[in-house]
Amino acid sequence: MTKSPEERQPVKAFGWAATDPSGHLSPFNFSRRETGDCDVRFKVLYCGICHSDLHAAKNEWGFSIYPLVPGHEIVGEVTEVGNQVKKVKVGDKVGVGCLVGACHSCHDCTNDLENYCSKRIFTYCSKGSDGTVTYGGYSDHMVADERYVVNFPESMPLAAAAPLLCAGITVYSPLKYYGLGEPGKHLGIVGLGGLGHVAVKFAKAFGAKVTVISTSPSKKEEAVNHLGADSFLVSHDQDQMQAAMGTMDGIIDTVSAVHPILPLIGLLKTHGKLVMVGAPEKPLELPIFPLALGRKMVAGSAMGGMKETQEMINFAAKHKIAADVEVIPMDYINTAMERLANGDVRYRFVIDIGNTLVNP
Amino acid sequence: MTKSPEERQPVKAFGWAATDPSGHLSPFNFSRRETGDCDVRFKVLYCGICHSDLHAAKNEWGFSIYPLVPGHEIVGEVTEVGNQVKKVKVGDKVGVGCLVGACHSCHDCTNDLENYCSKRIFTYCSKGSDGTVTYGGYSDHMVADERYVVNFPESMPLAAAAPLLCAGITVYSPLKYYGLGEPGKHLGIVGLGGLGHVAVKFAKAFGAKVTVISTSPSKKEEAVNHLGADSFLVSHDQDQMQAAMGTMDGIIDTVSAVHPILPLIGLLKTHGKLVMVGAPEKPLELPIFPLALGRKMVAGSAMGGMKETQEMINFAAKHKIAADVEVIPMDYINTAMERLANGDVRYRFVIDIGNTLVNP
Repeated sequence: MTKSPEERQPVKAFGWAATDPSGHLSPFNFSRRETGDCDVRFKVLYCGICHSDLHAAKNEWGFSIYPLVPGHEIVGEVTEVGNQVKKVKVGDKVGVGCLVGACHSCHDCTNDLENYCSKRIFTYCSKGSDGTVTYGGYSDHMVADERYVVNFPESMPLAAAAPLLCAGITVYSPLKYYGLGEPGKHLGIVGLGGLGHVAVKFAKAFGAKVTVISTSPSKKEEAVNHLGADSFLVSHDQDQMQAAMGTMDGIIDTVSAVHPILPLIGLLKTHGKLVMVGAPEKPLELPIFPLALGRKMVAGSAMGGMKETQEMINFAAKHKIAADVEVIPMDYINTAMERLANGDVRYRFVIDIGNTLVNP
Repeated sequence: MTKSPEERQPVKAFGWAATDPSGHLSPFNFSRRETGDCDVRFKVLYCGICHSDLHAAKNEWGFSIYPLVPGHEIVGEVTEVGNQVKKVKVGDKVGVGCLVGACHSCHDCTNDLENYCSKRIFTYCSKGSDGTVTYGGYSDHMVADERYVVNFPESMPLAAAAPLLCAGITVYSPLKYYGLGEPGKHLGIVGLGGLGHVAVKFAKAFGAKVTVISTSPSKKEEAVNHLGADSFLVSHDQDQMQAAMGTMDGIIDTVSAVHPILPLIGLLKTHGKLVMVGAPEKPLELPIFPLALGRKMVAGSAMGGMKETQEMINFAAKHKIAADVEVIPMDYINTAMERLANGDVRYRFVIDIGNTLVNP
């Protein structure tokens, strides 16, 4: 007999879940495992709303498991640690991002790239190591192996830092891996949303010259004056785009909608790199001539390993980087999801779980 | 008044040219410049027929200038050198590939990457430094700046080595740049034509494990037993492809027809590289999910710089690498072009210019 989500594990838990592809979320009782020897249990204080949460709630990627508790930008305060936990103690501020497990023996895992392990376990909507489904951070508490728990320095503003656990590492990792975030490099950031606005901040902190490329001329003022971008291109302005051809060492493309990449390849210098971190559902059109004649590349990147995630958080703390957030109460979630679908947020919703999640 | 091709330059030349987009070639009188201080003049002995010659003759890329003398896999014997030429002397065997000029001052040129200079001058169908159109190697002689002239070691079989000047460097350069031609690496080669068969030879000489991926099961015997590939995959055999998923460090894709690259991305390990050296006229479909989730890349590469071209020729001479060629007389050219269009050549036609080009 299959146990209900509430009875499956020994520790009661409460959160909000989507129960069908309408994506509508509602209160949900479930359960989590006991604190194992290597586990960290923590009270969730804040959880960011990533665009993936919306895709998953609506089963837009086709692999959702309902009931589905989203949330993988989770910060909180440690309430219990297992016998063998060395990294944190009760009372510490910690975070959990997109991952809660991997095989720990493959080539990627042994190179601190758990995010590319073929057996990686996602924070929600994945089968955990015990075979039960994982539940995300729209919930009262979390429990995770300490390997997947990130320390948050005391100076970090928790609500604003939560989105770094997905949006932050998603842009930080390729900036490092592809050598784009370096002084003297000219970097383009396509799309000024949750990922894009954090990418501008990291790239500027690394010392790169940053140009934001967006379909919305209205974002120029904010990109340049508020986020510190050096320049701004309206992607449908032919003259502006033409004048910028061949000037960029790399581009981080954060756009999830299907869009043309030929103009972006044109913006690159020879040997330039276009890195896709958005997740368009359909294939994009890839022209081969301009790629070959300039020895350019179109590459992907997804999340980051745990070692790099901690490095990113420490870097963000040092350089006072956090997301620009709109903090919302738990029961605003369905309105927030609608607004997110319409691009109506600057730049990330963060749920104040600690103060507003109420188990009736 | 515009001078005729025959009167434009002081030295009479003779070759075969296409005069319209039918692509049909016929005898053609033209002229070449005098031997400048830095120039090397040589009698053409052999010239390979590259697929680009066919595209250009028929104006399939849209930038042909008629009359068009194709040919950029040119070898011959030096007949005259300018005062300042140091690299070669009369009687030496030399070659000219895809390029005869560049700006020599840009970032690419100063890094021995003349092939990516935005002012590069192609061997045919380009405007030369004096503003006149360039004519390729289907002709009795060539004259070129010594920077673009490659020394051929005495041991090289000239006819079979000619295709290395385009096909050879086109695959050698990305094998080096993308770090794919190394012992312990597993490399896929897509397409077993002019480029592909030479790619197998170079990759094996570098010490890589090589798998040929082809639509034609009939090529397996030749790929494995004759060219030395370690294994062979039929690209439409789902079981074979499935079994090879995630096993390759890199793939060199030499196919010029529009084709699906999703299966190729699947063959790559995480962080693997798919390098396109063919030239499909239309964009390919690029799926972003598998690219991002495996941190893979799709990259381009075109030709190579002159320093690397000489390095490649020296490496080929040392490792006895040359193309498998069918040597043809000049007046067979139109039949050869037809056969090439139908894929009926193993693996490269080379015109015996020295013995068969007759100026009536």
